[in-house]
Amino acid sequence: MKKLEEILEKIQPVSQTALLEGQEHCDRLAKPFGSLGKLELIYSRLFAIFSQKINLSKKVILVYVADNGVVDEGISSNPQETTAQVALNMKKGMSGVCVLSSFVGNVVKVIDIGCKKDLGGDYGPKIRYGTGNIRKEAAMTLDEAEAAIMVGFEAAKEAIQGGFTVLGTGEMGIGNTTTSVALISALLDLDPEGLTGYGAGLTEKMRVHKIQVIKDSLALHSKKTDPLEIASCVGGLDILGIAGTFLAAAYYKVPCVVDGLISIAGLLLAYKLNPVVMDYVVGSHYSKEPAFQAVADYLGLKPMFDLDMRLGEGSGCPLAFQLMDTAVYTIEHMPTFEDCFLKPEDYIDIREERLIEESRS
Amino acid sequence: MKKLEEILEKIQPVSQTALLEGQEHCDRLAKPFGSLGKLELIYSRLFAIFSQKINLSKKVILVYVADNGVVDEGISSNPQETTAQVALNMKKGMSGVCVLSSFVGNVVKVIDIGCKKDLGGDYGPKIRYGTGNIRKEAAMTLDEAEAAIMVGFEAAKEAIQGGFTVLGTGEMGIGNTTTSVALISALLDLDPEGLTGYGAGLTEKMRVHKIQVIKDSLALHSKKTDPLEIASCVGGLDILGIAGTFLAAAYYKVPCVVDGLISIAGLLLAYKLNPVVMDYVVGSHYSKEPAFQAVADYLGLKPMFDLDMRLGEGSGCPLAFQLMDTAVYTIEHMPTFEDCFLKPEDYIDIREERLIEESRS
Repeated sequence: MKKLEEILEKIQPVSQTALLEGQEHCDRLAKPFGSLGKLELIYSRLFAIFSQKINLSKKVILVYVADNGVVDEGISSNPQETTAQVALNMKKGMSGVCVLSSFVGNVVKVIDIGCKKDLGGDYGPKIRYGTGNIRKEAAMTLDEAEAAIMVGFEAAKEAIQGGFTVLGTGEMGIGNTTTSVALISALLDLDPEGLTGYGAGLTEKMRVHKIQVIKDSLALHSKKTDPLEIASCVGGLDILGIAGTFLAAAYYKVPCVVDGLISIAGLLLAYKLNPVVMDYVVGSHYSKEPAFQAVADYLGLKPMFDLDMRLGEGSGCPLAFQLMDTAVYTIEHMPTFEDCFLKPEDYIDIREERLIEESRS
Repeated sequence: MKKLEEILEKIQPVSQTALLEGQEHCDRLAKPFGSLGKLELIYSRLFAIFSQKINLSKKVILVYVADNGVVDEGISSNPQETTAQVALNMKKGMSGVCVLSSFVGNVVKVIDIGCKKDLGGDYGPKIRYGTGNIRKEAAMTLDEAEAAIMVGFEAAKEAIQGGFTVLGTGEMGIGNTTTSVALISALLDLDPEGLTGYGAGLTEKMRVHKIQVIKDSLALHSKKTDPLEIASCVGGLDILGIAGTFLAAAYYKVPCVVDGLISIAGLLLAYKLNPVVMDYVVGSHYSKEPAFQAVADYLGLKPMFDLDMRLGEGSGCPLAFQLMDTAVYTIEHMPTFEDCFLKPEDYIDIREERLIEESRS
């Protein structure tokens, strides 16, 4: 476990001075104090992450594809094969996150971290062909869990070294709202009953069954206390890959966007390994899954979009990217009080100019 | 009052069939049913407004500038002169909404409907130099109120005839959260106590005073029952201009974005004149002003952004424009189930292609 431990030790927080400087810049703009709300918070955070030189030029969403053995328990409304189908569609640009991304202008990279089917090509490295059924056994070994985190870390590292300056996290894996709720319940010591939603499209009867499956899984692995060990028992390979990506973002000092439930489960795991990761996180949208809100409250994360979206795939990331671009441009280009109010003669000039224009026309 | 009455009579709802067709298109896309949330609602609405041929090519925010006599009661943290100063800055592109708009690519048009100062140039037509102090007298006459609505209607008409296909509503006017809360309280018969927020930056003591001013104003004009008459007594010229713009959007069948508190006060007035206007409305962000939420609940409006913004000026509109573009592009370009799942051999082909590529490299 040396590699992961080294990474965790080397993660540094952003400079609090830079964070304040970013906010001070916002406060000099000609507008009521704080009136750009979360756009100011995004700006200050990016200002601190990038040590003043914000660079949002190249953005990528890392989408982790993994199957979950717990699908055998009938907790999803989709067949397991959908994981591979949608992943292959993504590679062709044929999915929600891909179309959103082609509009916004970011890249989507599909990473097969644990699909049951071989997707072919450069999708790997796969840790294993789907996880074990968490109601009956551990999802994976502890070594596999660490390896999965390192897949996420390395994918992010490769992207950053390839010139990407902003990361987003996404996933595709039938059954992964079940593993996410199980992991969140275990890490926050909360009853899954209040955390379990309707996933991609469950009936109330199916939801009740899903809660029971999660409860049984938690009971089976209740003796684990270490976060990574818990994740190896009830998590999923996609969640672990996402956790590794958040760790890499903090390690290499780039911002990383959290999407919905599965993404925030990965973030929570990364946070449990080193809470400093939060310094590098940008929110996107609220999820309708109750476990999302529980983690957001716990982490103090405040998303910007309220869109009732539940598509997964990292589909909140392109929207957040667009808003980050807008926030940074706006705050970098808005006039300051000095520009506006300390030269009242400017207004008179403009008025006179316009009157002259009028008299000419 | 013939002109306004004629307009109100001629407003037509969008086709319910087209609204359903828009939703049916969303339902054919390869994604869990309804999983794009509000993006689907925006798309369906635009599909119906534009009779299937959505055209978001040219967007404009109409910003109404007006002063409010009630500022004499000390209800604002800003001096009245700020109205003209910010309006003139806007014309130079030096304000929050202008910088947001220059990033998003929409136009901002500043309209002097009632500033105390003359802004010069083509800003007019001004109805009057600020309103009366609503705590002591009517804000304006009934004729002036109708004329102000017509200014908003004509500004929108001119924009639409000039090729703009999407409208947004904005305002600048010190004291206009007071007139907005007064109008909303009167139109919805709600106690201003629970509706009054901190405006652009009040202390709690100032807020208590503001509530009293609104209560006194409502008491003075309590015998009025007709919405336009109520607006002439406790409203503002900016609010009336915005109401006229929403009426024009419905009359000419183009979408119109609602911004924050003042904008939604104008929308509420338009709704009271003809509820069909709601068919043409797109939300933007939540306002922190409690009266906003009261109207949003009343009208069934569900904004998309939760940004804690309180800048005014129509600053939510560029963000909504951007999201409208994103929603329409995404839903028009996403593959359908037919594209994705009824030709499973597509996936095998792609996989084989990739393997061939791999063996070559």
